[in-house]
Amino acid sequence: MRKINVAVLGATGTVGQRFIQLLEHHPYFKIKALLASTTSAGKQYGEVVNWLVSGQIPEEVKNIIVQDATPNSLKGRKIEIVFSALPTDIAKVAEPQFAAAGYQVFSNASAWRNEPDVPLVVTEINADHLKLVKVQQKRRGWPGFIVTNPNCSTIIMVLALKPLVDAFGVKQVIVSTMQAISGAGYPGVASLDIVDNVLPYIGGEEEKVENEPLKILGSLIKSQTSDDKVRANDSKQELEIKDVKIKISASCQRVCTLEGHLEDLHISLGRRASVNEIKKALTDFGSAFRGLPMAPKQTLVVTENPLRPQTRLDRDTGRGMAVTIGRIRPDRVLTNGIKMTILGHNTIRGAAGQSIMNAEWWTENGAKFKIKN
Amino acid sequence: MRKINVAVLGATGTVGQRFIQLLEHHPYFKIKALLASTTSAGKQYGEVVNWLVSGQIPEEVKNIIVQDATPNSLKGRKIEIVFSALPTDIAKVAEPQFAAAGYQVFSNASAWRNEPDVPLVVTEINADHLKLVKVQQKRRGWPGFIVTNPNCSTIIMVLALKPLVDAFGVKQVIVSTMQAISGAGYPGVASLDIVDNVLPYIGGEEEKVENEPLKILGSLIKSQTSDDKVRANDSKQELEIKDVKIKISASCQRVCTLEGHLEDLHISLGRRASVNEIKKALTDFGSAFRGLPMAPKQTLVVTENPLRPQTRLDRDTGRGMAVTIGRIRPDRVLTNGIKMTILGHNTIRGAAGQSIMNAEWWTENGAKFKIKN
Amino acid sequence: MRKINVAVLGATGTVGQRFIQLLEHHPYFKIKALLASTTSAGKQYGEVVNWLVSGQIPEEVKNIIVQDATPNSLKGRKIEIVFSALPTDIAKVAEPQFAAAGYQVFSNASAWRNEPDVPLVVTEINADHLKLVKVQQKRRGWPGFIVTNPNCSTIIMVLALKPLVDAFGVKQVIVSTMQAISGAGYPGVASLDIVDNVLPYIGGEEEKVENEPLKILGSLIKSQTSDDKVRANDSKQELEIKDVKIKISASCQRVCTLEGHLEDLHISLGRRASVNEIKKALTDFGSAFRGLPMAPKQTLVVTENPLRPQTRLDRDTGRGMAVTIGRIRPDRVLTNGIKMTILGHNTIRGAAGQSIMNAEWWTENGAKFKIKN
Amino acid sequence: MRKINVAVLGATGTVGQRFIQLLEHHPYFKIKALLASTTSAGKQYGEVVNWLVSGQIPEEVKNIIVQDATPNSLKGRKIEIVFSALPTDIAKVAEPQFAAAGYQVFSNASAWRNEPDVPLVVTEINADHLKLVKVQQKRRGWPGFIVTNPNCSTIIMVLALKPLVDAFGVKQVIVSTMQAISGAGYPGVASLDIVDNVLPYIGGEEEKVENEPLKILGSLIKSQTSDDKVRANDSKQELEIKDVKIKISASCQRVCTLEGHLEDLHISLGRRASVNEIKKALTDFGSAFRGLPMAPKQTLVVTENPLRPQTRLDRDTGRGMAVTIGRIRPDRVLTNGIKMTILGHNTIRGAAGQSIMNAEWWTENGAKFKIKN
Repeated sequence: MRKINVAVLGATGTVGQRFIQLLEHHPYFKIKALLASTTSAGKQYGEVVNWLVSGQIPEEVKNIIVQDATPNSLKGRKIEIVFSALPTDIAKVAEPQFAAAGYQVFSNASAWRNEPDVPLVVTEINADHLKLVKVQQKRRGWPGFIVTNPNCSTIIMVLALKPLVDAFGVKQVIVSTMQAISGAGYPGVASLDIVDNVLPYIGGEEEKVENEPLKILGSLIKSQTSDDKVRANDSKQELEIKDVKIKISASCQRVCTLEGHLEDLHISLGRRASVNEIKKALTDFGSAFRGLPMAPKQTLVVTENPLRPQTRLDRDTGRGMAVTIGRIRPDRVLTNGIKMTILGHNTIRGAAGQSIMNAEWWTENGAKFKIKN
Repeated sequence: MRKINVAVLGATGTVGQRFIQLLEHHPYFKIKALLASTTSAGKQYGEVVNWLVSGQIPEEVKNIIVQDATPNSLKGRKIEIVFSALPTDIAKVAEPQFAAAGYQVFSNASAWRNEPDVPLVVTEINADHLKLVKVQQKRRGWPGFIVTNPNCSTIIMVLALKPLVDAFGVKQVIVSTMQAISGAGYPGVASLDIVDNVLPYIGGEEEKVENEPLKILGSLIKSQTSDDKVRANDSKQELEIKDVKIKISASCQRVCTLEGHLEDLHISLGRRASVNEIKKALTDFGSAFRGLPMAPKQTLVVTENPLRPQTRLDRDTGRGMAVTIGRIRPDRVLTNGIKMTILGHNTIRGAAGQSIMNAEWWTENGAKFKIKN
Repeated sequence: MRKINVAVLGATGTVGQRFIQLLEHHPYFKIKALLASTTSAGKQYGEVVNWLVSGQIPEEVKNIIVQDATPNSLKGRKIEIVFSALPTDIAKVAEPQFAAAGYQVFSNASAWRNEPDVPLVVTEINADHLKLVKVQQKRRGWPGFIVTNPNCSTIIMVLALKPLVDAFGVKQVIVSTMQAISGAGYPGVASLDIVDNVLPYIGGEEEKVENEPLKILGSLIKSQTSDDKVRANDSKQELEIKDVKIKISASCQRVCTLEGHLEDLHISLGRRASVNEIKKALTDFGSAFRGLPMAPKQTLVVTENPLRPQTRLDRDTGRGMAVTIGRIRPDRVLTNGIKMTILGHNTIRGAAGQSIMNAEWWTENGAKFKIKN
Repeated sequence: MRKINVAVLGATGTVGQRFIQLLEHHPYFKIKALLASTTSAGKQYGEVVNWLVSGQIPEEVKNIIVQDATPNSLKGRKIEIVFSALPTDIAKVAEPQFAAAGYQVFSNASAWRNEPDVPLVVTEINADHLKLVKVQQKRRGWPGFIVTNPNCSTIIMVLALKPLVDAFGVKQVIVSTMQAISGAGYPGVASLDIVDNVLPYIGGEEEKVENEPLKILGSLIKSQTSDDKVRANDSKQELEIKDVKIKISASCQRVCTLEGHLEDLHISLGRRASVNEIKKALTDFGSAFRGLPMAPKQTLVVTENPLRPQTRLDRDTGRGMAVTIGRIRPDRVLTNGIKMTILGHNTIRGAAGQSIMNAEWWTENGAKFKIKN
């Protein structure tokens, strides 16, 4: 298979570094361009990056000259996919420029997640939402498109929730997160703020964890319009997401760990389920996607060890793409209540890894969803 | 005022050290004896203790010869009060021996907390439960008694709950704790288990946090018996605690902090209350007890700073005896739901400090509760 | 005694906060003004500061309106002393303005430390160098003056070296430091750079540790000039510092501690000395200065415990003003070699506390050193 | 190539776990037995081990039944090599039993390191010392033998010293170490002892770092005896190690890192050398051994980045078998002095990895050194 040429936007940041690390020797994709802020542009990547992820900078990108984060930088390079690790405010402006220039943008930024025609995708959960791409392209007139993945804490949580939603229904979720410092980027959290400390607040995080799952777990439906004539004409009906009805309350804390978000979940199920039924539902989840290069052998790893999951010991499970779940037990407060501890790698499954997996799925299956040009 | 002579049981452990630190220059109490395991007995305290709390070993205890943890060690020393920081299994056997020998035992151990005739006291909440002492002495024939204080996480939580129970009623509580390593004593948590890590389980902790509050927040009532004749005879009625009706679900995590337990609370109130009403109820709490030496000026410190409470910055508030409460906001899942972050010092308010404050209150008020000899 | 009014320059930074904390209830000094960058100017201190030192913001400064860091801000306030915690580049320009406006500047900044007419003082070591104030005032025509204290790692080290210099002579020093993150200010060291890590480099630190001691331990002598006539006229002779002859080699590392610099010293003495002789020399040091409010009871605390000093357990000794010294043992490489571990509080003795102690000494003794106006 | 069957002694400890991790899929060796203390014996490895190294327990050892640490356990299993991660006191007794039973013991324990007839080997430095095996076998009458590797801090340091010894000579070394907690095993260092702390002492460590290099860097010579007749008879001459003449002074500190020992070296060379000459000597070192499976591509990695080596970022270089060296600069105290920061992985290159590499070399080259049976 001929590899698809890709670019990384925001290549020098911590998520940008993860993109590069995960794309090294990737069977589908080949990095052809690295874009970043103008202060880095014009210099070799190896000179400007403060490489913080484990291991060394991949040889294949060390000498790539960093360019400005505009579509012009990619001209004539036969690049098809752009992975975006841009900060929100820059992504808001820049990502549409790339979509308008014909690029397939897979973005980890939050800027476009809540737009009704922008898919917010966790591959195993709602790859079918990628059908929205057609709607997006039509509405906006873009030859390319933007596909987003959720916030790191959200991704880890919805992966654990999805099989429960399908098997038993989920009514309510109360979640308390203990998040790693890498989630704040670099320089990010000051050491004086986190050594021997817990921070009780992460800006904007609770809103994302409470709201993003409603879209991700929602259903792709044909739009309801008040215009009878349009309604009569099936071919004019558009697709849209109908949010799932689950109430979620989140409290997000930062703790002194490097990588890996641990979450304490309290869930009210739609019907009573035994711990064993729950374990089975979790374990069976995701097997249909195992053919994708980024997919872990086991999406949700259920541990029987009462002392697990632990952040440091379990974050790398499934090369950082699996979510480890333990301590599944009844919750005596909520109706049909269960509680459990879940753990995932925030910059792999929770960010760059998810973007890449979405792009892998699109590469295999997207052709039939795309608008005909 | 002549000082009351006291002894510390389990004097070499981390809670024992806190007792000693807090009793230095105490206006009511004077340490006259330090008891510990036989391996330490016969040696000077300064030689055997691995002093881990901040500052130096108080001069007044450095040269005290450590003795065996039996009542015999205290004979002829005019000691009245015994503060116990013994491990649970040893406390189970040893504390009754001291009570039987006439000592007033104020214990931080969990061994006797759940006995119906043993008070489980957080001074500002249920000092009146100390009336159970009379019942205990009568039933067991002890000239002395055992008074216990709750688990560290429980104390911090019930202090925040009590004013809400009184003002609005509390139906349900879901709590997720982020607890400090000092709670496990010394050597306690191995560094390989907690650096860059979160532990999702603390043995026995969740049961304590879920059950102890029911007794602490319960009411002291006259016993119901099926024997009509006894019931007719008022003077024979005994006192007992009737548990409060609140459902609590706890998840207890260990994080890499030295001192200070942070707790994320989700509370279903009996009636709807505004954030301002809640703040007022919290702020007004505890003022009646400010005369006691250990009491903080403000029992519950409500912070408006959205980034607080933080473990390291707020644990020493009120010399470690105050609980700091922040991020009070609605919870969208629970009925009349609110959520908040609370923080208290686990080895001061959560252990030794609470024991001492209970003894202070007893010293001031206990005379009228005691059985007449 | 009427208190002397003082101002703190750079009041919002971490060293500025230490100045404020240490000046609360100070017997000599009273804070009358807080100066900082223009972004903070015009607002109440309690609103703009991110208070990071333990405890709460002192009530007496909470409502002070922060002003611009210029002498104009202090007009008509009867302020005599200005404590400076300014960044180096700003101190370079601003401190002379305050001296020129008549203020006594005691500065923790490095900007002016190496000027021949600016005293670089650790009170117990070279308070006599304050005689340079007269030279400085004459040369520069300032009614006020600048007095500096050394770099944090330097202060801790020279305190341990001075009694050895006096008793045995010191020829060579090899020092390896393990420095706390607070030394870099706020936000300072990124958490991603220091959790589970050691940083082998601290910009400019090794040069300071190798060079500053030569001036501090140097002698105040009358200047040698080539002009015979001037030399003949004694009253025209100026004072200057002659550097001590010691070779120092430093390696400075950052480790994951909050406060407290630990240093591993290898020293070649001028003559052979036993461990006991060395302990005696260290223990006897500094007693003449115990009357000053900031002075610890014991300047150098020698510990016999082979496991001490430890950063967390010993940094607060002498309210952060003592240096704890342990593991004194022969060094088999250097001539008349000894090695030892020393530990001091970097933002108290190593910064704000030293500035204040210098000002205390000047307040008691400076009158006789000052130029007559 | 048929694989050689091996056993791991002390398989449940942290070094034992590293042996197992590094031996998974090893091209020469295959684990056939895991031996540990009697409390683990009889149970499956996966059940008894508290797996703390990254990743999961290798499938191939999960179900192996742990056996007692005696040669009897290995009977009839065709095992040739035994890797020992036993505690010193147990190794003292047990390792000779395995050697006497015919096994080739490659040991990480310190028990036998200082015996004159036991090789203490860092492959690239002194593989030729393995000729001592013949002497050992003859003297002790063992069909097997014991080969040891040095202390973790020593291995890392001597690797950096060896090329300097060869190129310029080394007269003196002053070393200050900042060692990771994993070096103390499990549970090892209590978290209360190391969070926000530096420990200035590691039992027995400084002696090892000062003395072991003298043997490792020493020369294999023919024994000097006073018996002229024996001397005349060449075939009776035995081999022995003559210590190198270098004076080493070490200070060993424990810091809060998980893996990786960082060392600050100050070296007095035999002759003046430029920084570039030194870099060249370091970079050229070890190439002859690159064919061995455990050998890194580059034994000593010289970094030009002034902020490196850093413990977390560089410990895994060369799969944990390389030593990263940075900040090479003149030392102004020592004669022909240089200083540098070096960093190596303490449980890979500093322990299990070194033992395995020694066994690899022996497997390739040992035949010619062995005694003829």
